[in-house]
Amino acid sequence: MVTKIDVNKQQKLKNPVMLVGLPGIGLVGKIAIDYLVSELKPKANTYATIVSDTFPPAVHAKASTLELISDNIYLYKGKTRDYLFVAGPVQPNLTNISNSQEHYEFSEKIAEFAKKQGVKEIYTFAGLNIGEKRLNQKPRVLAVSSDKDTKEKLKNKKIDNLIFDDTQGDTLISGVAGLLVGVAYYNHKISGCCFMGETDQKLIFGDQGSARSVVGVISDLFEFKVDMKKIDTQAKKIEESFQEIQQKIKELEKKKEEPVSYIR
Amino acid sequence: MVTKIDVNKQQKLKNPVMLVGLPGIGLVGKIAIDYLVSELKPKANTYATIVSDTFPPAVHAKASTLELISDNIYLYKGKTRDYLFVAGPVQPNLTNISNSQEHYEFSEKIAEFAKKQGVKEIYTFAGLNIGEKRLNQKPRVLAVSSDKDTKEKLKNKKIDNLIFDDTQGDTLISGVAGLLVGVAYYNHKISGCCFMGETDQKLIFGDQGSARSVVGVISDLFEFKVDMKKIDTQAKKIEESFQEIQQKIKELEKKKEEPVSYIR
Amino acid sequence: MVTKIDVNKQQKLKNPVMLVGLPGIGLVGKIAIDYLVSELKPKANTYATIVSDTFPPAVHAKASTLELISDNIYLYKGKTRDYLFVAGPVQPNLTNISNSQEHYEFSEKIAEFAKKQGVKEIYTFAGLNIGEKRLNQKPRVLAVSSDKDTKEKLKNKKIDNLIFDDTQGDTLISGVAGLLVGVAYYNHKISGCCFMGETDQKLIFGDQGSARSVVGVISDLFEFKVDMKKIDTQAKKIEESFQEIQQKIKELEKKKEEPVSYIR
Amino acid sequence: MVTKIDVNKQQKLKNPVMLVGLPGIGLVGKIAIDYLVSELKPKANTYATIVSDTFPPAVHAKASTLELISDNIYLYKGKTRDYLFVAGPVQPNLTNISNSQEHYEFSEKIAEFAKKQGVKEIYTFAGLNIGEKRLNQKPRVLAVSSDKDTKEKLKNKKIDNLIFDDTQGDTLISGVAGLLVGVAYYNHKISGCCFMGETDQKLIFGDQGSARSVVGVISDLFEFKVDMKKIDTQAKKIEESFQEIQQKIKELEKKKEEPVSYIR
Repeated sequence: MVTKIDVNKQQKLKNPVMLVGLPGIGLVGKIAIDYLVSELKPKANTYATIVSDTFPPAVHAKASTLELISDNIYLYKGKTRDYLFVAGPVQPNLTNISNSQEHYEFSEKIAEFAKKQGVKEIYTFAGLNIGEKRLNQKPRVLAVSSDKDTKEKLKNKKIDNLIFDDTQGDTLISGVAGLLVGVAYYNHKISGCCFMGETDQKLIFGDQGSARSVVGVISDLFEFKVDMKKIDTQAKKIEESFQEIQQKIKELEKKKEEPVSYIR
Repeated sequence: MVTKIDVNKQQKLKNPVMLVGLPGIGLVGKIAIDYLVSELKPKANTYATIVSDTFPPAVHAKASTLELISDNIYLYKGKTRDYLFVAGPVQPNLTNISNSQEHYEFSEKIAEFAKKQGVKEIYTFAGLNIGEKRLNQKPRVLAVSSDKDTKEKLKNKKIDNLIFDDTQGDTLISGVAGLLVGVAYYNHKISGCCFMGETDQKLIFGDQGSARSVVGVISDLFEFKVDMKKIDTQAKKIEESFQEIQQKIKELEKKKEEPVSYIR
Repeated sequence: MVTKIDVNKQQKLKNPVMLVGLPGIGLVGKIAIDYLVSELKPKANTYATIVSDTFPPAVHAKASTLELISDNIYLYKGKTRDYLFVAGPVQPNLTNISNSQEHYEFSEKIAEFAKKQGVKEIYTFAGLNIGEKRLNQKPRVLAVSSDKDTKEKLKNKKIDNLIFDDTQGDTLISGVAGLLVGVAYYNHKISGCCFMGETDQKLIFGDQGSARSVVGVISDLFEFKVDMKKIDTQAKKIEESFQEIQQKIKELEKKKEEPVSYIR
Repeated sequence: MVTKIDVNKQQKLKNPVMLVGLPGIGLVGKIAIDYLVSELKPKANTYATIVSDTFPPAVHAKASTLELISDNIYLYKGKTRDYLFVAGPVQPNLTNISNSQEHYEFSEKIAEFAKKQGVKEIYTFAGLNIGEKRLNQKPRVLAVSSDKDTKEKLKNKKIDNLIFDDTQGDTLISGVAGLLVGVAYYNHKISGCCFMGETDQKLIFGDQGSARSVVGVISDLFEFKVDMKKIDTQAKKIEESFQEIQQKIKELEKKKEEPVSYIR
């Protein structure tokens, strides 16, 4: 089986863009795409299903019925063009270094699918770990594109909070967010860009604030009208509790460093 | 080779149902299916053999002859229809997370075989860990079906002790019992249901009591006439020894908590 | 590439038998086959080479030239029939449980090759761990055959020291020695037998005594004329040093058990 | 995808030689080949790109653009013949013993490519760990060739500092440097030689001195005119800092062995 993408009902798409957000650091990409899928009007509909034998060997049960673990591709019909949102609970396991080929295969299958659907641009969303600095600033969105032309085109749009930081040294971007853009460009000449919201990797239950920055950038870029109230509220909550926890951790660490009054 | 299913002698089957019980939590599925295969009259016969290079790289020796490790498919010819029982000592190794594809492939091969034999329904048996609660109650059988229609059809049969608990939140069911139902439905539109007997996962040598509940449900569902005496006796024995052991463990733990009268 | 068997120069073989001894417990199979290859007259010649991408990713260097890691198949032309000896330094890694399919593939390739060469019988040699009992007795050779007919045929030959112990319960035999006999019979109806010399698995540098028993059985079975002097000398040496070591270990353990005269 | 080698613009090559240096012990091979690629005049140009799903599931980002992790093949047009340099940051992961086949596949793909391009000789560069002895002598280059003819031909060229040490016992050479020479000769009859610069495996940031010896041997062999000043300076620096560190380690170890004056 490997990775299989099944279209519910094939449609002729209008100059489609693909937007991808799967689980990763701070769940930034997943939260951003899920928010877009739930908030955009008219409602995005399930267009295709992704199943893969690289997903866990288990099924998802709910209300006494079960289904294969899968990601979904939603179709959002915009005014001037169509959008395919790739969303879901799973990407190949990054902790398993022995299965490098699973990641390449998964990315290639999505890229092939995009090609077939007429997609000419792919945007992926992810988190970028900047550690504790995350809490002292509004998360920025760093962009890394498939090629210089795409970079220049995006830069010229002067999107607020979208940063191309060419001064950064060589880095590696792990996982599907980077690999899909790389594979789609190398194998199919589909250009793209990876948008990374700054986050703290300790936010394992999700960084809504960082995802909010990504949603903001995307909405500006594609002129989506998205109500930001809900995600703003969630982001505020998360940031408050995280700051509290950090405060407590620091107090505990301070105590540890105090001189001890007994002999051990 | 991967997974290969060899039919001894192809027969035209009469509206066949597939019933599957392989080793898993509490060995519930395996014990249930083995009991049915040994007790049903007329005797079920070996219909096909399953070998797979995902099974351990070893052979099974007995009485100075050896054979490949294999599962078996038994044919039981009922009055109105035929039954294929999938039984045996092995399913792909669940502790090996790096071989997710082995589980999908194994399930898909069985589903393909079922399709080819004309099977329209697949029922799998497994254990569901509920911990220590297991010993305070007669194990129930929880059902999770491939689709809503199958769920309604089964619910309407009002089988005693068979529970569809729609209030349960999202869960994951690991292993072939869930995956086979999922794959058969997704790839081949064969509907099915996974029957899970409540058990305590500490019962690693097998929970005959839970298996007995599953056998009961199956016998009601398909109007099998199965003598329950043997499995009832086994179940009683297992439960008594387990209760004894639990008792001892609790006493030991109590002792540990008592104040110690010496300085260490 | 997977596993590839390359024949140097294809010949028409006369009712060939395949004999296989690769590294395993006590190196029994490897030592036995190597001894036969070196001692039989007329000299056995390299007939084919086995390379495999399941072998270690390394090359073997000697005298400033290198070659791929490989096993060899030697052809020994007997008076009435031909013999193919499968010998060499490597079989797929048994400690790597995640690569079950490598073992099946390796065995299947050898079985296919045997089939193509007209082989109708395969005999494999291995060690059988019996622990410390090994040193108190002349190692016996236990046989487990592919089928009952082969068992009866071999039993009727009344080979000295060759034991068919039908009273043993169910056991698993790991590795190519068992798997090859199983796969060859299941997939190609080539019958065979696995001969296991009793050994102590602590003899990691090789148990010449156990191998000697296997060579004895094989020589009787095929009426090979093999000078046993060298292997007898080696076996004696190994057994003496092992007995010495065991003696020392026991003395050390005894000391440990003596009461200690100080408080800790 | 597995391993894919894409030629930018196919050219008819003039009796081409392939030279390969990928990361390994002391980075010797990689440093040597990178130095040749950067110093040879006329400049070597990128001729082909190697991508592989055995490489890490990540992309390489720089100046806000990303690309797949890849090795490169550079074409250097010499006076009488052409040279293909295989260079880059990655070879299949040697710490992952469960993926032996990745190494064989990677080597075979390069060998196939070489064959197609008309290559008749392959030279690979690597480091050979000789431990602390490394610092007391100018690193020699040990050669292990694919066959005796190649060995004799190379020996007869009497290249300074190139050693064929036939007295060494059997050894294993791990990784692509050995495997590529082995596979190319076994599968395609392309002869070759592995040149190993003596190094200390503790030099994990690279042993320029050892690489310098390799570059020297190669330059003599192919009459390359390479300015050695830069690599000589780097080598000196590395050796000085390493000697310093070693000195400090020894002092620390000496201290540890001194009697302690307090009771713990």
